Amino acid sequence: MPQGQPTLVPVDGLTTRQRRNRPLTIVHTGVMKGKSTAAFGMALRAWNQGWDLGVFQFVKSAKWKVGEEEAFRALGELHTERGLGGPVQWHKMGEGWSWSRKAGSEDDHAAAALEGWREIQRRLAEQTHDFYVLDEFTYPLKWGWVDVEEVVQTLQNRPGHQHVVITGRDAPPALIEVADLVTEMTKIKHPMDAGQKGQRGIEW
Amino acid sequence: MPQGQPTLVPVDGLTTRQRRNRPLTIVHTGVMKGKSTAAFGMALRAWNQGWDLGVFQFVKSAKWKVGEEEAFRALGELHTERGLGGPVQWHKMGEGWSWSRKAGSEDDHAAAALEGWREIQRRLAEQTHDFYVLDEFTYPLKWGWVDVEEVVQTLQNRPGHQHVVITGRDAPPALIEVADLVTEMTKIKHPMDAGQKGQRGIEW
Repeated sequence: MPQGQPTLVPVDGLTTRQRRNRPLTIVHTGVMKGKSTAAFGMALRAWNQGWDLGVFQFVKSAKWKVGEEEAFRALGELHTERGLGGPVQWHKMGEGWSWSRKAGSEDDHAAAALEGWREIQRRLAEQTHDFYVLDEFTYPLKWGWVDVEEVVQTLQNRPGHQHVVITGRDAPPALIEVADLVTEMTKIKHPMDAGQKGQRGIEW
Repeated sequence: MPQGQPTLVPVDGLTTRQRRNRPLTIVHTGVMKGKSTAAFGMALRAWNQGWDLGVFQFVKSAKWKVGEEEAFRALGELHTERGLGGPVQWHKMGEGWSWSRKAGSEDDHAAAALEGWREIQRRLAEQTHDFYVLDEFTYPLKWGWVDVEEVVQTLQNRPGHQHVVITGRDAPPALIEVADLVTEMTKIKHPMDAGQKGQRGIEW
């Protein structure tokens, strides 16, 4: 629920409506659960607005599959079949765009991550989607596979009205600097502290 | 993505599988966005597991409607029609369970909140759902409309394997004490700081 009012009104020559409808760069970072789940929760809202949704998961394994993937594929079908919500595309580094490469070595993952980012750059330029989820995208940035400055420039200069949500630990300062909304998921308590492992339906 | 291993293995006589499959009490608190969205993101995973999902929104207004509601109603229909995912029930204090009362005064909200909690108690006793979202439930606790100690007792003694996620600011210490997983959504940056108001598809 949106709470509170803006604490200052900027002198930027924009009306409230114009300012309200600016495209947002959103970052979910921190060590705790909830970064990706909150991003997919936001994506539900986007879907409900009829927005075109593009999810790009920068995960290494093709086997890694979260429950959200199935749910969004179902929602995408509802759009195709009945016109409900918006269209959904879900892409995974571990399978979808590592077309000619075999997984296994670190080099392959680096190339696949860059390949994914290049595709996102093209889509941003062409305004393919309204709402992008770049899930776990901070890791390729952290590991130097994708250049942070290039990402920042691309985000700042993207045309039209495209929202972008980026998740993952250790978001680089340059990204946080240009983001409009940054949330850190902070751990207060986690079952693993008490010796409990992850479980189906909760962690994936 | 579940990261890391348990840092200790408890001497509780349970196997890893038994320990893994314990029902969880989860709290999303803190001042920042993401508490409810992360809860609904988790609910997507639950839906995908075929779990019975019960959402209880402790919001005062019948008009307040998040995009997630439409999306989950659509997913619930997919379950009914095609057997995909799990069944979904979505209840709102502002409309659904304030049957005989009129909204408006604080007294009504207090009574409605308690009414909602009593229903949840009954459902927990009867094991109606597998996964409960008690959205914005910390507020009735904070305002004394629902007794924290009673909630803690009910949660601790609930039968079977029912996960419960509670969201809202200022989660009471007694609730955090008994929760298995507590995440605080911490603000690093918010558009309202720069004079921007909430916008459709992002805040609701």
